[in-house]
Amino acid sequence: MKKSKNLRQKELKETLEVSPFTTDEELARRFGVSIQTIRLDRMEMSIPELRERIKSVATQEWNETVKALPIEEVIGEVVDLELDKRAISILDIRPEHVFSRNNIARGHHLFAQANSLAVAVINDELALTARSDIHFRRQVKLGERVVSKANVEGKDSRGHTIVSVQSYVGNEEVFAGTFEMFRSNQ
Amino acid sequence: MKKSKNLRQKELKETLEVSPFTTDEELARRFGVSIQTIRLDRMEMSIPELRERIKSVATQEWNETVKALPIEEVIGEVVDLELDKRAISILDIRPEHVFSRNNIARGHHLFAQANSLAVAVINDELALTARSDIHFRRQVKLGERVVSKANVEGKDSRGHTIVSVQSYVGNEEVFAGTFEMFRSNQ
Repeated sequence: MKKSKNLRQKELKETLEVSPFTTDEELARRFGVSIQTIRLDRMEMSIPELRERIKSVATQEWNETVKALPIEEVIGEVVDLELDKRAISILDIRPEHVFSRNNIARGHHLFAQANSLAVAVINDELALTARSDIHFRRQVKLGERVVSKANVEGKDSRGHTIVSVQSYVGNEEVFAGTFEMFRSNQ
Repeated sequence: MKKSKNLRQKELKETLEVSPFTTDEELARRFGVSIQTIRLDRMEMSIPELRERIKSVATQEWNETVKALPIEEVIGEVVDLELDKRAISILDIRPEHVFSRNNIARGHHLFAQANSLAVAVINDELALTARSDIHFRRQVKLGERVVSKANVEGKDSRGHTIVSVQSYVGNEEVFAGTFEMFRSNQ
Protein backbone atom coordinates (compact mmCIF):
# COMPACT_ATOMS: atom_id res chain seq x y z
CA MET A 1 0.00 0.00 0.00
CA LYS A 2 1.28 3.42 -0.88
CA LYS A 3 2.07 5.85 1.87
CA SER A 4 -0.25 8.78 2.36
CA LYS A 5 0.92 12.04 0.85
CA ASN A 6 1.41 13.54 4.29
CA LEU A 7 3.57 10.67 5.48
CA ARG A 8 5.56 10.65 2.24
CA GLN A 9 6.25 14.36 2.45
CA LYS A 10 7.31 14.04 6.07
CA GLU A 11 9.70 11.19 5.23
CA LEU A 12 10.96 12.98 2.12
CA LYS A 13 11.85 16.00 4.21
CA GLU A 14 13.65 13.83 6.75
CA THR A 15 15.53 12.02 3.99
CA LEU A 16 16.77 15.29 2.52
CA GLU A 17 17.85 16.58 5.90
CA VAL A 18 20.07 13.52 6.33
CA SER A 19 21.11 13.22 2.66
CA PRO A 20 20.71 16.58 0.95
CA PHE A 21 22.39 15.31 -2.23
CA THR A 22 19.71 12.71 -3.02
CA THR A 23 18.35 13.24 -6.54
CA ASP A 24 14.66 13.41 -7.45
CA GLU A 25 15.15 10.16 -9.37
CA GLU A 26 16.42 8.37 -6.27
CA LEU A 27 13.63 9.81 -4.15
CA ALA A 28 11.04 8.67 -6.69
CA ARG A 29 12.48 5.15 -6.61
CA ARG A 30 12.64 5.09 -2.84
CA PHE A 31 9.05 6.24 -2.34
CA GLY A 32 7.63 4.35 -5.30
CA VAL A 33 6.18 7.43 -6.97
CA SER A 34 6.92 9.37 -10.15
CA ILE A 35 9.63 12.01 -10.40
CA GLN A 36 6.90 14.53 -11.12
CA THR A 37 5.27 13.67 -7.77
CA ILE A 38 8.57 14.28 -5.98
CA ARG A 39 8.92 17.63 -7.72
CA LEU A 40 5.44 18.63 -6.66
CA ASP A 41 6.19 17.49 -3.09
CA ARG A 42 9.32 19.62 -3.06
CA MET A 43 7.47 22.63 -4.41
CA GLU A 44 4.71 22.30 -1.83
CA MET A 45 7.30 22.13 0.96
CA SER A 46 9.53 24.81 -0.65
CA ILE A 47 12.50 22.45 -0.84
CA PRO A 48 14.86 23.71 -3.54
CA GLU A 49 16.24 21.50 -6.30
CA LEU A 50 19.41 19.48 -5.81
CA ARG A 51 21.86 22.02 -7.17
CA GLU A 52 20.53 24.68 -4.82
CA ARG A 53 20.56 22.25 -1.89
CA ILE A 54 24.21 21.45 -2.52
CA LYS A 55 25.09 25.13 -2.56
CA SER A 56 23.21 25.72 0.70
CA VAL A 57 25.07 22.82 2.36
CA ALA A 58 28.37 24.45 1.50
CA THR A 59 29.44 26.31 4.62
CA GLN A 60 30.48 29.37 2.66
CA GLU A 61 29.86 30.64 -0.81
CA TRP A 62 32.33 29.29 -3.31
CA ASN A 63 34.40 32.38 -3.87
CA GLU A 64 37.84 30.85 -4.11
CA THR A 65 39.71 30.15 -7.29
CA VAL A 66 41.18 26.82 -8.23
CA LYS A 67 44.93 27.30 -8.32
CA ALA A 68 46.38 24.03 -9.53
CA LEU A 69 44.58 23.78 -12.86
CA PRO A 70 42.07 25.63 -15.04
CA ILE A 71 38.59 25.00 -13.64
CA GLU A 72 37.46 23.38 -16.91
CA GLU A 73 40.11 20.68 -16.43
CA VAL A 74 38.43 19.47 -13.27
CA ILE A 75 36.43 16.32 -14.05
CA GLY A 76 32.89 17.00 -12.81
CA GLU A 77 31.38 20.29 -11.76
CA VAL A 78 32.92 21.95 -8.70
CA VAL A 79 30.11 23.26 -6.49
CA ASP A 80 32.09 24.13 -3.38
CA LEU A 81 35.71 24.92 -2.70
CA GLU A 82 37.80 26.21 0.12
CA LEU A 83 41.46 25.92 -0.80
CA ASP A 84 43.54 23.59 1.38
CA LYS A 85 40.37 22.62 3.27
CA ARG A 86 37.62 20.99 1.27
CA ALA A 87 35.86 20.77 -2.08
CA ILE A 88 32.76 19.17 -3.56
CA SER A 89 32.05 18.21 -7.16
CA ILE A 90 29.22 16.52 -9.05
CA LEU A 91 29.57 14.10 -11.96
CA ASP A 92 26.56 12.77 -13.83
CA ILE A 93 27.31 9.34 -15.23
CA ARG A 94 26.62 9.51 -18.95
CA PRO A 95 27.00 6.90 -21.72
CA GLU A 96 30.65 7.86 -22.34
CA HIS A 97 31.50 6.95 -18.73
CA VAL A 98 30.23 3.37 -18.71
CA PHE A 99 31.21 -0.05 -20.00
CA SER A 100 29.06 -0.54 -23.11
CA ARG A 101 28.31 -4.07 -22.01
CA ASN A 102 26.66 -3.49 -18.65
CA ASN A 103 26.26 0.30 -18.22
CA ILE A 104 28.49 0.25 -15.13
CA ALA A 105 30.66 3.34 -14.70
CA ARG A 106 34.31 2.69 -15.50
CA GLY A 107 36.64 3.00 -12.55
CA HIS A 108 38.91 5.57 -14.12
CA HIS A 109 36.09 8.11 -14.39
CA LEU A 110 35.32 7.84 -10.67
CA PHE A 111 39.05 8.06 -10.06
CA ALA A 112 39.34 11.08 -12.38
CA GLN A 113 36.60 12.94 -10.53
CA ALA A 114 38.17 12.26 -7.14
CA ASN A 115 41.75 12.82 -8.25
CA SER A 116 41.07 16.08 -10.06
CA LEU A 117 39.16 17.31 -7.02
CA ALA A 118 42.15 16.41 -4.85
CA VAL A 119 44.33 18.45 -7.21
CA ALA A 120 41.86 21.35 -7.33
CA VAL A 121 41.61 21.69 -3.54
CA ILE A 122 45.36 22.29 -3.18
CA ASN A 123 46.41 25.92 -2.91
CA ASP A 124 49.42 25.57 -5.18
CA GLU A 125 49.94 26.11 -8.87
CA LEU A 126 51.84 22.84 -9.21
CA ALA A 127 49.91 20.17 -7.37
CA LEU A 128 50.47 16.61 -8.50
CA THR A 129 49.38 13.24 -7.20
CA ALA A 130 52.21 11.18 -5.74
CA ARG A 131 50.26 8.20 -4.45
CA SER A 132 46.73 7.02 -3.96
CA ASP A 133 44.90 4.21 -2.20
CA ILE A 134 41.37 3.81 -3.51
CA HIS A 135 38.33 1.63 -2.96
CA PHE A 136 35.47 1.08 -5.33
CA ARG A 137 32.68 0.34 -2.85
CA ARG A 138 29.84 -0.43 -5.19
CA GLN A 139 29.04 -0.26 -8.88
CA VAL A 140 27.80 3.06 -10.21
CA LYS A 141 25.27 2.92 -13.01
CA LEU A 142 24.46 5.02 -16.03
CA GLY A 143 22.30 8.01 -15.04
CA GLU A 144 23.47 8.16 -11.43
CA ARG A 145 24.85 11.36 -9.99
CA VAL A 146 28.12 11.06 -8.10
CA VAL A 147 28.91 13.67 -5.46
CA SER A 148 32.59 13.75 -4.45
CA LYS A 149 33.77 15.38 -1.25
CA ALA A 150 37.43 16.12 -0.70
CA ASN A 151 38.86 16.98 2.68
CA VAL A 152 42.43 18.09 3.30
CA GLU A 153 43.67 16.08 6.28
CA GLY A 154 47.14 17.57 6.78
CA LYS A 155 50.66 16.59 5.83
CA ASP A 156 52.60 13.38 6.03
CA SER A 157 56.25 13.01 7.06
CA ARG A 158 57.48 13.80 3.54
CA GLY A 159 55.53 17.02 3.35
CA HIS A 160 52.92 15.58 1.01
CA THR A 161 49.42 16.89 1.60
CA ILE A 162 46.91 14.14 2.41
CA VAL A 163 43.49 14.57 0.84
CA SER A 164 40.69 12.11 1.58
CA VAL A 165 37.90 11.86 -0.97
CA GLN A 166 34.57 10.11 -0.58
CA SER A 167 32.10 9.84 -3.44
CA TYR A 168 28.41 9.20 -2.93
CA VAL A 169 25.33 8.29 -4.91
CA GLY A 170 22.54 9.50 -2.69
CA ASN A 171 23.75 8.67 0.81
CA GLU A 172 25.62 5.56 -0.29
CA GLU A 173 29.39 5.69 -0.48
CA VAL A 174 30.52 4.35 -3.86
CA PHE A 175 34.19 5.34 -3.85
CA ALA A 176 36.75 6.29 -1.23
CA GLY A 177 40.33 7.32 -1.74
CA THR A 178 43.33 8.78 0.03
CA PHE A 179 45.55 10.96 -2.13
CA GLU A 180 49.09 12.04 -1.28
CA MET A 181 49.61 15.30 -3.10
CA PHE A 182 52.92 16.80 -4.02
CA ARG A 183 53.04 20.60 -3.97
CA SER A 184 55.78 22.91 -5.19
CA ASN A 185 55.71 25.01 -2.01
CA GLN A 186 55.88 22.07 0.40
CA MET B 1 82.37 15.49 -28.83
CA LYS B 2 80.00 13.21 -30.65
CA LYS B 3 80.47 9.49 -30.45
CA SER B 4 81.70 7.70 -33.54
CA LYS B 5 79.05 5.96 -35.56
CA ASN B 6 80.44 2.56 -34.60
CA LEU B 7 80.36 3.31 -30.90
CA ARG B 8 76.88 4.84 -31.16
CA GLN B 9 75.52 1.80 -32.99
CA LYS B 10 77.09 -0.53 -30.43
CA GLU B 11 75.56 1.38 -27.53
CA LEU B 12 72.25 1.70 -29.33
CA LYS B 13 72.08 -2.04 -29.72
CA GLU B 14 72.91 -2.58 -26.05
CA THR B 15 70.30 -0.02 -25.02
CA LEU B 16 67.60 -1.81 -27.00
CA GLU B 17 68.57 -5.18 -25.58
CA VAL B 18 68.02 -3.85 -22.07
CA SER B 19 65.04 -1.60 -22.93
CA PRO B 20 63.38 -2.84 -26.09
CA PHE B 21 60.52 -0.37 -25.71
CA THR B 22 62.67 2.74 -26.07
CA THR B 23 61.34 4.95 -28.86
CA ASP B 24 63.42 6.42 -31.69
CA GLU B 25 62.71 9.86 -30.20
CA GLU B 26 64.20 8.83 -26.86
CA LEU B 27 67.19 7.22 -28.54
CA ALA B 28 67.80 10.36 -30.58
CA ARG B 29 67.74 12.46 -27.43
CA ARG B 30 70.01 10.10 -25.56
CA PHE B 31 72.64 9.93 -28.29
CA GLY B 32 72.33 13.56 -29.33
CA VAL B 33 71.53 12.77 -32.96
CA SER B 34 68.49 13.18 -35.20
CA ILE B 35 65.64 10.67 -35.29
CA GLN B 36 66.53 10.05 -38.93
CA THR B 37 70.04 8.99 -37.85
CA ILE B 38 68.57 6.51 -35.36
CA ARG B 39 66.34 5.08 -38.08
CA LEU B 40 69.31 4.64 -40.38
CA ASP B 41 71.28 3.02 -37.54
CA ARG B 42 68.44 0.60 -36.96
CA MET B 43 68.16 -0.22 -40.64
CA GLU B 44 71.89 -0.86 -40.92
CA MET B 45 71.75 -3.19 -37.94
CA SER B 46 68.42 -4.74 -39.00
CA ILE B 47 66.74 -3.73 -35.75
CA PRO B 48 63.00 -3.58 -36.35
CA GLU B 49 60.86 -0.60 -35.35
CA LEU B 50 59.39 -0.32 -31.87
CA ARG B 51 56.05 -1.97 -32.58
CA GLU B 52 57.77 -5.01 -34.02
CA ARG B 53 60.23 -5.13 -31.12
CA ILE B 54 57.38 -5.15 -28.64
CA LYS B 55 55.73 -8.02 -30.44
CA SER B 56 58.96 -10.00 -30.47
CA VAL B 57 59.40 -9.48 -26.73
CA ALA B 58 55.97 -10.99 -26.11
CA THR B 59 56.58 -14.62 -25.28
CA GLN B 60 53.79 -15.80 -27.54
CA GLU B 61 51.80 -14.23 -30.31
CA TRP B 62 48.82 -12.34 -29.04
CA ASN B 63 46.08 -14.71 -30.02
CA GLU B 64 43.79 -14.43 -27.05
CA THR B 65 40.64 -12.37 -26.86
CA VAL B 66 39.90 -9.82 -24.20
CA LYS B 67 36.92 -11.12 -22.26
CA ALA B 68 36.00 -8.43 -19.76
CA LEU B 69 35.36 -5.60 -22.19
CA PRO B 70 35.39 -4.79 -25.92
CA ILE B 71 38.99 -4.28 -27.00
CA GLU B 72 38.28 -0.70 -28.11
CA GLU B 73 37.36 0.17 -24.51
CA VAL B 74 40.87 -0.58 -23.32
CA ILE B 75 42.74 2.71 -22.85
CA GLY B 76 45.92 2.41 -24.89
CA GLU B 77 46.76 -0.20 -27.49
CA VAL B 78 47.05 -3.78 -26.29
CA VAL B 79 50.12 -5.37 -27.87
CA ASP B 80 50.33 -8.57 -25.85
CA LEU B 81 47.84 -10.57 -23.84
CA GLU B 82 47.68 -13.90 -22.13
CA LEU B 83 44.48 -14.11 -20.11
CA ASP B 84 44.91 -14.44 -16.35
CA LYS B 85 48.68 -14.11 -16.81
CA ARG B 86 49.95 -10.89 -18.33
CA ALA B 87 49.26 -8.08 -20.76
CA ILE B 88 51.08 -5.12 -22.28
CA SER B 89 49.67 -1.90 -23.69
CA ILE B 90 51.07 1.31 -25.16
CA LEU B 91 49.71 4.81 -24.67
CA ASP B 92 51.17 7.80 -26.50
CA ILE B 93 50.69 10.94 -24.41
CA ARG B 94 48.88 13.43 -26.61
CA PRO B 95 47.63 16.96 -25.91
CA GLU B 96 44.27 15.68 -24.60
CA HIS B 97 46.11 13.74 -21.85
CA VAL B 98 48.06 16.60 -20.28
CA PHE B 99 47.48 19.58 -18.04
CA SER B 100 47.30 22.55 -20.42
CA ARG B 101 49.50 24.53 -18.09
CA ASN B 102 52.62 22.40 -17.97
CA ASN B 103 52.13 19.56 -20.49
CA ILE B 104 52.40 16.95 -17.71
CA ALA B 105 50.19 13.90 -18.22
CA ARG B 106 47.18 13.87 -15.91
CA GLY B 107 47.17 11.08 -13.36
CA HIS B 108 43.83 9.67 -14.35
CA HIS B 109 45.04 8.83 -17.85
CA LEU B 110 47.97 6.80 -16.49
CA PHE B 111 45.52 5.21 -14.07
CA ALA B 112 43.04 4.51 -16.90
CA GLN B 113 45.70 2.75 -18.98
CA ALA B 114 46.79 0.58 -16.06
CA ASN B 115 43.31 -0.08 -14.72
CA SER B 116 41.81 -1.01 -18.07
CA LEU B 117 44.75 -3.33 -18.69
CA ALA B 118 44.12 -4.94 -15.29
CA VAL B 119 40.49 -5.44 -16.34
CA ALA B 120 41.44 -6.73 -19.80
CA VAL B 121 43.84 -9.37 -18.48
CA ILE B 122 41.12 -11.07 -16.42
CA ASN B 123 39.52 -14.10 -18.02
CA ASP B 124 35.99 -13.19 -16.99
CA GLU B 125 33.18 -11.31 -18.65
CA LEU B 126 32.48 -9.29 -15.51
CA ALA B 127 35.78 -8.09 -14.11
CA LEU B 128 35.65 -4.98 -11.94
CA THR B 129 38.19 -3.15 -9.84
CA ALA B 130 37.56 -3.42 -6.10
CA ARG B 131 40.61 -1.63 -4.78
CA SER B 132 43.85 -0.14 -5.96
CA ASP B 133 47.06 1.21 -4.46
CA ILE B 134 48.99 3.31 -6.95
CA HIS B 135 52.18 5.34 -7.15
CA PHE B 136 52.99 8.07 -9.60
CA ARG B 137 56.78 7.74 -9.72
CA ARG B 138 57.68 10.60 -12.02
CA GLN B 139 55.96 13.09 -14.26
CA VAL B 140 55.15 11.96 -17.77
CA LYS B 141 55.34 14.59 -20.49
CA LEU B 142 53.51 15.30 -23.72
CA GLY B 143 54.89 13.13 -26.54
CA GLU B 144 56.19 10.36 -24.32
CA ARG B 145 55.16 6.77 -24.89
CA VAL B 146 53.97 4.84 -21.86
CA VAL B 147 54.29 1.06 -21.91
CA SER B 148 52.16 -0.67 -19.25
CA LYS B 149 52.80 -4.23 -18.15
CA ALA B 150 50.22 -6.13 -16.15
CA ASN B 151 50.99 -9.35 -14.30
CA VAL B 152 48.42 -11.50 -12.57
CA GLU B 153 49.88 -12.36 -9.17
CA GLY B 154 47.20 -14.70 -7.81
CA LYS B 155 44.27 -14.35 -5.43
CA ASP B 156 43.85 -12.76 -2.05
CA SER B 157 41.88 -14.17 0.88
CA ARG B 158 38.60 -12.78 -0.44
CA GLY B 159 39.03 -14.39 -3.82
CA HIS B 160 39.94 -11.14 -5.53
CA THR B 161 42.55 -11.48 -8.26
CA ILE B 162 45.64 -9.37 -7.65
CA VAL B 163 47.10 -7.70 -10.73
CA SER B 164 50.30 -5.67 -10.52
CA VAL B 165 50.90 -3.08 -13.19
CA GLN B 166 54.08 -1.16 -13.93
CA SER B 167 54.23 1.57 -16.55
CA TYR B 168 57.45 2.73 -18.17
CA VAL B 169 58.77 5.50 -20.35
CA GLY B 170 61.84 3.95 -21.87
CA ASN B 171 63.31 1.94 -19.03
CA GLU B 172 62.14 4.33 -16.33
CA GLU B 173 59.19 3.32 -14.19
CA VAL B 174 56.65 6.15 -14.11
CA PHE B 175 53.68 4.43 -12.51
CA ALA B 176 53.11 1.35 -10.39
CA GLY B 177 49.87 -0.04 -9.10
CA THR B 178 48.33 -3.03 -7.41
CA PHE B 179 44.76 -3.78 -8.44
CA GLU B 180 42.36 -6.07 -6.59
CA MET B 181 39.96 -7.33 -9.22
CA PHE B 182 36.51 -8.71 -8.58
CA ARG B 183 35.40 -11.45 -10.96
CA SER B 184 31.99 -13.05 -11.35
CA ASN B 185 33.42 -16.59 -11.33
CA GLN B 186 35.59 -16.12 -8.24
